[in-house]
Amino acid sequence: MADSMKAMFAPNGVAIFGSAAPGKLANVLVHRVLEGGMERVYAVNPKGLGVDSVKGYASVLDIGEEIDLAVIASPAFTVKDIMEECGKKGIKAAVIISSGFSEAGNSGGEKEVMEVAKKYGIRCVGPNCAGLVNTHSNLVATLETKPPKGNISMVSQSGAIGGSFMALSAADGVGIAKFLSYGNGADLTAIDLLRYLKDDEETKVVAVYVESVANGRKFMETVKKVVAVKPVVIVKSGRSSFGQRAAMSHTGSMAGADHVFDAALKQCGAIRADTLKEMFEICKGFALMPPMKGRKVAVVTNSGGPGVMSTDRAESVGLDIPVSSDALKEELAGFLPVFAGMKNPIDLTVEGTGEQYEFACKAALKEMDGALAIYVGTPYLKSMPCAKGIAKAAKASGKPVTAMMQVGTDIEESLRYLRENKIPCYELGENAVSVLSKLAEYYEFVSSNVNVRCFYDIKKCGTLFEGRKRLLETEAMQLLRDNGIPVPEYAFATSAGEVRDNADKVGYPMVMKVVSPQIVHKSDCGGVILPISSAAEAVEAFHKLAAVAEGKDFRGAMMVPLLKPGREVILGLTKDPQFGMVVAFGMGGIYTEVLKDISLRIAPVTKETALCMVKEIKTYPILEGVRGQSGVDLDKLAEAISKFSELPFVYPDIKEADLNPVFLYENSLCVADARVLG
Amino acid sequence: MADSMKAMFAPNGVAIFGSAAPGKLANVLVHRVLEGGMERVYAVNPKGLGVDSVKGYASVLDIGEEIDLAVIASPAFTVKDIMEECGKKGIKAAVIISSGFSEAGNSGGEKEVMEVAKKYGIRCVGPNCAGLVNTHSNLVATLETKPPKGNISMVSQSGAIGGSFMALSAADGVGIAKFLSYGNGADLTAIDLLRYLKDDEETKVVAVYVESVANGRKFMETVKKVVAVKPVVIVKSGRSSFGQRAAMSHTGSMAGADHVFDAALKQCGAIRADTLKEMFEICKGFALMPPMKGRKVAVVTNSGGPGVMSTDRAESVGLDIPVSSDALKEELAGFLPVFAGMKNPIDLTVEGTGEQYEFACKAALKEMDGALAIYVGTPYLKSMPCAKGIAKAAKASGKPVTAMMQVGTDIEESLRYLRENKIPCYELGENAVSVLSKLAEYYEFVSSNVNVRCFYDIKKCGTLFEGRKRLLETEAMQLLRDNGIPVPEYAFATSAGEVRDNADKVGYPMVMKVVSPQIVHKSDCGGVILPISSAAEAVEAFHKLAAVAEGKDFRGAMMVPLLKPGREVILGLTKDPQFGMVVAFGMGGIYTEVLKDISLRIAPVTKETALCMVKEIKTYPILEGVRGQSGVDLDKLAEAISKFSELPFVYPDIKEADLNPVFLYENSLCVADARVLG
Repeated sequence: MADSMKAMFAPNGVAIFGSAAPGKLANVLVHRVLEGGMERVYAVNPKGLGVDSVKGYASVLDIGEEIDLAVIASPAFTVKDIMEECGKKGIKAAVIISSGFSEAGNSGGEKEVMEVAKKYGIRCVGPNCAGLVNTHSNLVATLETKPPKGNISMVSQSGAIGGSFMALSAADGVGIAKFLSYGNGADLTAIDLLRYLKDDEETKVVAVYVESVANGRKFMETVKKVVAVKPVVIVKSGRSSFGQRAAMSHTGSMAGADHVFDAALKQCGAIRADTLKEMFEICKGFALMPPMKGRKVAVVTNSGGPGVMSTDRAESVGLDIPVSSDALKEELAGFLPVFAGMKNPIDLTVEGTGEQYEFACKAALKEMDGALAIYVGTPYLKSMPCAKGIAKAAKASGKPVTAMMQVGTDIEESLRYLRENKIPCYELGENAVSVLSKLAEYYEFVSSNVNVRCFYDIKKCGTLFEGRKRLLETEAMQLLRDNGIPVPEYAFATSAGEVRDNADKVGYPMVMKVVSPQIVHKSDCGGVILPISSAAEAVEAFHKLAAVAEGKDFRGAMMVPLLKPGREVILGLTKDPQFGMVVAFGMGGIYTEVLKDISLRIAPVTKETALCMVKEIKTYPILEGVRGQSGVDLDKLAEAISKFSELPFVYPDIKEADLNPVFLYENSLCVADARVLG
Repeated sequence: MADSMKAMFAPNGVAIFGSAAPGKLANVLVHRVLEGGMERVYAVNPKGLGVDSVKGYASVLDIGEEIDLAVIASPAFTVKDIMEECGKKGIKAAVIISSGFSEAGNSGGEKEVMEVAKKYGIRCVGPNCAGLVNTHSNLVATLETKPPKGNISMVSQSGAIGGSFMALSAADGVGIAKFLSYGNGADLTAIDLLRYLKDDEETKVVAVYVESVANGRKFMETVKKVVAVKPVVIVKSGRSSFGQRAAMSHTGSMAGADHVFDAALKQCGAIRADTLKEMFEICKGFALMPPMKGRKVAVVTNSGGPGVMSTDRAESVGLDIPVSSDALKEELAGFLPVFAGMKNPIDLTVEGTGEQYEFACKAALKEMDGALAIYVGTPYLKSMPCAKGIAKAAKASGKPVTAMMQVGTDIEESLRYLRENKIPCYELGENAVSVLSKLAEYYEFVSSNVNVRCFYDIKKCGTLFEGRKRLLETEAMQLLRDNGIPVPEYAFATSAGEVRDNADKVGYPMVMKVVSPQIVHKSDCGGVILPISSAAEAVEAFHKLAAVAEGKDFRGAMMVPLLKPGREVILGLTKDPQFGMVVAFGMGGIYTEVLKDISLRIAPVTKETALCMVKEIKTYPILEGVRGQSGVDLDKLAEAISKFSELPFVYPDIKEADLNPVFLYENSLCVADARVLG
């Protein structure tokens, strides 16, 4: 693979297939590849037409030199034969821009092309893609905008989105390392390209645009590995009703597949952006700035309004804009005029000079983890002195500094200067602090172990269902108990005698439930009797339950002590078509259903991840205890969630499960009802 | 005032005060005013220095011609004398750019200047402001960027924010009518300027940036009047902990003052934007497009990715992207190739032509209320044919059409063409649909009466408290009953005899509560007894309550029937420092407290507004009925909220009140507990 990837990204000789007449795709591609700086370029088309100085050939086999990469923009029906010739020529990689394959219903044609490619060991990007770019090897094999050289790499399922991203890069001046549009992904997909970028030294941050992910777990594992080395920023469209809804029952009915995708990204530490623009802005921040090792931010401004608005945003994205320490205030007071604001935002006022920016940023960065410098100028003044001051302070601190800089006679020059000095500028201070929060989030993720170990090996223990659809409640409870999840001290009695023997052991008040594979909704048919206060009442209840099950497969009665009331939560396991088993956690009751207040993770989860799930729901304060209530045992809860999430890996025929409700107490918890389906 | 405003915005002769030496503010201002196109400009400064062709004078009284407007940029201590001379000269309006007044602790100086202005009837903008612009009279009396001519007007408390707004306008080409930065607002404030803009024919939409509002109700009333004629878009900073927290107890503790501001804007139909950029984008939409008379939007695109992303956003901002009707699909199929997407988004694919854009938009706009056209091109192709197609369709439909257009050899020209044809373009389709949603929202507001009648006259009935702080529970209940708010059929007994007389009338089970001005927390000291099932028990309870109150001012016992359980809500009234009495509504219970799920309005509210409040909370579905529960009587609830919100206007000494809880039933409601403070 390494060889093909080298041929793909730093080819020695490129052949471009397709009509070379002016205005035709292949003609444009020849120009793009030449302009990019590639030297050995050949045009191949039936007429053997050349393009300007580029020689044309009727067959690639006619070319005397060695060729690494084929760029194909000829009609779909010609691609198979072209691939055959490429194989014979010893070409190792192909970019198939041509469309008219599986995206247009022609899966057969696509398969044929891939079979030829496989035969010759040619790795392919496409078909139906926008091509690729490697600014570090002067390769511009795309119809899209050529971006400047840089260290952001982008993988895009959509050519147009990729093109927009590169247009943003060109307009903003922050460069791209590699761009890869994989279109139908018949051979190389997002997963392969991510693996490649993980070890690519020219790539500091990876942007990904996907609309669908074929193998969710493989995608997650790959992203997780990349994230361990460099940040990954992802846009996935189809959040709304367009997003495929997972077939989830009960707890799962609260969550669409998009929430599952969100959870998966959270687990692998990828950063999800809402829009292409946001993704670009975040990548720009990672591309230019050093790591952000905390959440304390200084805002240094020459204008109050934008300072306050950035502070508003900082708080809403979880950053901290702490009031300056006394030491900092004192240091600032020694240099700034009395009417300057010393607290944070540090307001230099409209008279702020370059020296003051430098001094204030330097002083503040001694106690803060990063800074935002805001400069709003007037159209007749220079902004460069302030840009220089900000850049000096950033360099001296080694911490991330970002800026919003507007209006001035030399504003374009100032913005360029800041960019060259690794200070990303944004249109609004609000955007700048949002980016800082992503830097902090990434640093926290990679420097902690929480969330990371989510794919450990679990020994599979066998099957539970043997053709059945559902475990009996007693079986479900037994399963939970066997796997370390607290259940009530229940008993199962198959006769009046067994009831009598067990009653005092179970204790009173007691509940008795009918056990029959044919009775699912037990309370609806009188199959639940409570409260029971004596052995005699228990025996009587047993006979009643037997009567309820008359004519059905009556297995006996479950005897359960009435649980004392506690805070109620729900655990669920369901299968997502992309990611497999997903574990859900939420508060019990009507509010959670109405508010869709639930947290999800791809199962299994560690105790640490489970604790994150618990803390993530909006109603979490209720578990911590409000209005003088004591909190619940979060440690035991996290442990139970983790163990529950492992069940479908221990018993692979579990398809769905609900523990609803689970009662939580100050020092313990207990599952009150369980439903396990196969 | 009309005269002064004419002098301010379309002056006949402008005198500029302050040092005219190169690089000084007044020098720059002279150049700006000249460049703006004003002809009669004079420089006034102690040395009588001129600027280029502009003649200088040592005193404004030396100028022979008539002068309407003074623009003052001289040191603070000189402004009073300058104002005196202006008065003598008959100048009617002044823009005081000079700082060093109340913003710097010099309120005295500011007051003196204003006294002189008042004496001569000079209306002032400033001091400490960034000046003003009227593109329609060629007046550029500001240091900020000169914007192109247009129909957006902006009022800004902050000069820097105003400058940024005009810089945005200049960069984007969408023009400004008037810009007004009022700084300290010593004379004219946002309220005056809004009143002026309401009747200004050159203004189609008003943008407002405020950090604080001195008189909330006056501000609301003014905004409401403007909104009736043209849209008002507002950014208010200080959303987070910087925003002043209202001193609210209990229910109010869930809401900061920013939520009150939000409520006030909602009530007057103003549109709140989060950022300056968003405000500009919304204004641009209103400035260019016709009204949006519904929420159905067509997305016509040549690229799937951006189409789906815009659709995601449309759904999240409450727009509808309905599937094309069969008639529309048929019409499209007659013109578009088979591989085009006909559903909506209508995907013309990468081969989409100008004709196809025109046709598809035209066809879709027959059944939709507006459209977003997305064009993502390639760098070697022209985008103009598509721009023309989109513009033709927009014109023919008379409906709002917005666009996202990227990449092309003539992309700048295309964007300009679209703007000139009243089609606002945005960087992202997501932003475009967000703007469309604001157009729809504004149209809905002005074409409905809901929310509008919030300041009706209420006759004041007198006082309740006479030096006390709190009504007794019986008094509070009586007050509610007198004002048409349902309370239990309680009785008040001052003796055992009265208890016996009333017991059967009240009915059983009954609750009895101690009544004493010295006992607030009744349950804590045994002052609440329940359940009571007979007259004898009631008498016994009375004696117990008397004992509880021993040594205190015992007034008697309140006898209340035990209410049947219902869904619990809370109503509250508290005083906001900017807006006065605010009414709050929320669900009862712990969840609401944790989730801060509460809706607010400036009191009083009509029944229609109250219903909006009820429907606004996230847990509203619970009131509608979930899991087979029946809904509650929303009509009676809205009526009760409306009547409750009127109380502090009928009895102006009410400072705070809580009804907590109120029980809601299928056909009625009942206040279970009331607290009214004076």
